[in-house]
Amino acid sequence: MSYGIVTEQITTFDTELRLESGRILGPIDIAYETYGTLNEARSNAILVTHAWTGSAHLAGRHSEDEKRAGWWDEIVGPGCLLDTDRYFVICSNVIGSCFGSTGPTSINPKTGKRYNLAFPVITVRDMVKAQTLLLDRLGIEKLFCVLGGSMGGMQALEWATQYPDRVASAVVLATTPRPSAQAISLNAVARWAIFNDPTWKKGEYRKNPKDGLALARGIGHITFLSDESMTAKFGRRFSARDGQFDFFGQFEVERYLNYNGYNFVDRFDANSFLYLAKALDLYDVAAGFESMEEAFEPVRAPIQFFAFTSDWLYPPAQTEEMVATLQNLGKSVEYHLITSAYGHDAFLLEHQTFTPMVQSFLDGIKP
Amino acid sequence: MSYGIVTEQITTFDTELRLESGRILGPIDIAYETYGTLNEARSNAILVTHAWTGSAHLAGRHSEDEKRAGWWDEIVGPGCLLDTDRYFVICSNVIGSCFGSTGPTSINPKTGKRYNLAFPVITVRDMVKAQTLLLDRLGIEKLFCVLGGSMGGMQALEWATQYPDRVASAVVLATTPRPSAQAISLNAVARWAIFNDPTWKKGEYRKNPKDGLALARGIGHITFLSDESMTAKFGRRFSARDGQFDFFGQFEVERYLNYNGYNFVDRFDANSFLYLAKALDLYDVAAGFESMEEAFEPVRAPIQFFAFTSDWLYPPAQTEEMVATLQNLGKSVEYHLITSAYGHDAFLLEHQTFTPMVQSFLDGIKP
Repeated sequence: MSYGIVTEQITTFDTELRLESGRILGPIDIAYETYGTLNEARSNAILVTHAWTGSAHLAGRHSEDEKRAGWWDEIVGPGCLLDTDRYFVICSNVIGSCFGSTGPTSINPKTGKRYNLAFPVITVRDMVKAQTLLLDRLGIEKLFCVLGGSMGGMQALEWATQYPDRVASAVVLATTPRPSAQAISLNAVARWAIFNDPTWKKGEYRKNPKDGLALARGIGHITFLSDESMTAKFGRRFSARDGQFDFFGQFEVERYLNYNGYNFVDRFDANSFLYLAKALDLYDVAAGFESMEEAFEPVRAPIQFFAFTSDWLYPPAQTEEMVATLQNLGKSVEYHLITSAYGHDAFLLEHQTFTPMVQSFLDGIKP
Repeated sequence: MSYGIVTEQITTFDTELRLESGRILGPIDIAYETYGTLNEARSNAILVTHAWTGSAHLAGRHSEDEKRAGWWDEIVGPGCLLDTDRYFVICSNVIGSCFGSTGPTSINPKTGKRYNLAFPVITVRDMVKAQTLLLDRLGIEKLFCVLGGSMGGMQALEWATQYPDRVASAVVLATTPRPSAQAISLNAVARWAIFNDPTWKKGEYRKNPKDGLALARGIGHITFLSDESMTAKFGRRFSARDGQFDFFGQFEVERYLNYNGYNFVDRFDANSFLYLAKALDLYDVAAGFESMEEAFEPVRAPIQFFAFTSDWLYPPAQTEEMVATLQNLGKSVEYHLITSAYGHDAFLLEHQTFTPMVQSFLDGIKP
């Protein structure tokens, strides 16, 4: 059952946040939404962490006539996986993004103008540090669970490793301990597409640099799908509107990437795209540690991992490396490899497959 | 032993070539090089077909002080796989390219100006049709072998299927009967990168659109490598010149793609890149036939196929589909799956692995 109407909230922190880079960010706004009710023991909170282009709008609708519900509406609500009759579900927009939390589109208090490239490079660890401010303000000492996929999974890993006393469990989907050289290179060409756009103006644009951002999204989009799912959906069909021998004629898959790329320009900021791409590439669960073993040493929460067979961006072997390391350390860890043709996007689309597994994992967690 | 000095030749055909699109192209220049001597029976000619950005300069040097030898120098020369003491080796630049054969940079006889986008869309089948003109002129009725990888493999397939009486054997490396939706989409974003470059001017540039073409090459470059080879070469190393938290800081792999992309601008024409990308995407060995079976029905030459385990652009399963089809038709076919970390580029780099196999295949061919 869908959650219904939800209101986004924005809360401001006057603290100055010391970032991993050594730079200072503040004041900080954090946009968030909550679903369900915090219990008296304050022990039923589940934080859902979003991926690259996600927002705090996890589920429900902001008004009756909002066309689309939140980005993962299927799993939040009464009787759903994240049952709002039992849990208090929170989702906050990461810093660096453009959906209400402080990011490059925010006003830089030192200049009174948009940060743009004056915004500091941030990391996934910084995003989570900012989330701890929100939980402090909500009076939540310990999360019942932190759950996320892709960049959301990286955040869940940071919670489990950097704040081991503040999480009772973690569910990590389609993620990696550190993106590979190929994953980095695919983000690199996406960044390059924006840099090439003369309307980007080193970040000082008034209107999103549309051609560059649309192409950057097109490149990213390919990495979220799989050859199998693209073949099933489009195959080699040529656009019915075009002649096969027209110079500008397009294959259906080409038209689809183009169409979606330009749609993306209306909803996501180019500089935020660049900052978050950077955060993804820089991500390394073992940053600052001698090894992955050392990084996972403090973990106390049981962690449930999911990988998806056709995910070539963050392939299953990368999740399996974390699972093996945690097992060697004697930590409580559970791993499911899901057979799916949907590529990296499977973590959003295959929820019916993994819901019963997450359900039974959560049922075994003591707050 | 290297071949030594070689001279490129350009020959002009006044014929008007009817293209697969129905359009007419002519007159046609073809640039080519030959190595070794044609025997009296004219039965020892081997045609090597080049890939996307290749040229007729297969082997040897144009002068003593030419820095780099031809693109596949290692396999051509006395005592080499393509032994110039035994074989007459030919390599010609495909039409649509920018290395001497007629392409978008050539002068359009109707206007006295560069073709640019007035150049017709060409297909791999058209490239091979143009090659038959060259062989007619050289007085070669039947090739002892046609050998090529990637787009060169597609040409070899066209020789074997469209001109079954003119080839005694074919060696096909790292190719596909038709690129998949994912392969098309990766070329699509490369094209898009050039289209986005305002200096491309719908093909009417005077100077190569450098940012767009460099990025297009960067995207292509990723598809020629593998995650394994990139990880071995670059891993997640950050450029020593940059700070990890610099907005414009680059990973080594990112700098490498950038550096090579901009180098590429000096040696390849953007419009040719676009036309050949299109030819690759349009390629379908069964175009004009009811099925792959029907397309392969006329084949008379034994075909030797090679696929490479880490080639994710044209994965081994696509070669295996052709092998199985030919086997079912009772054709003479040989298949080798080579274990390699080099991705699609393996067909150029793993020659030491496949040389003995090609050698023994060629030894079994009767002219």
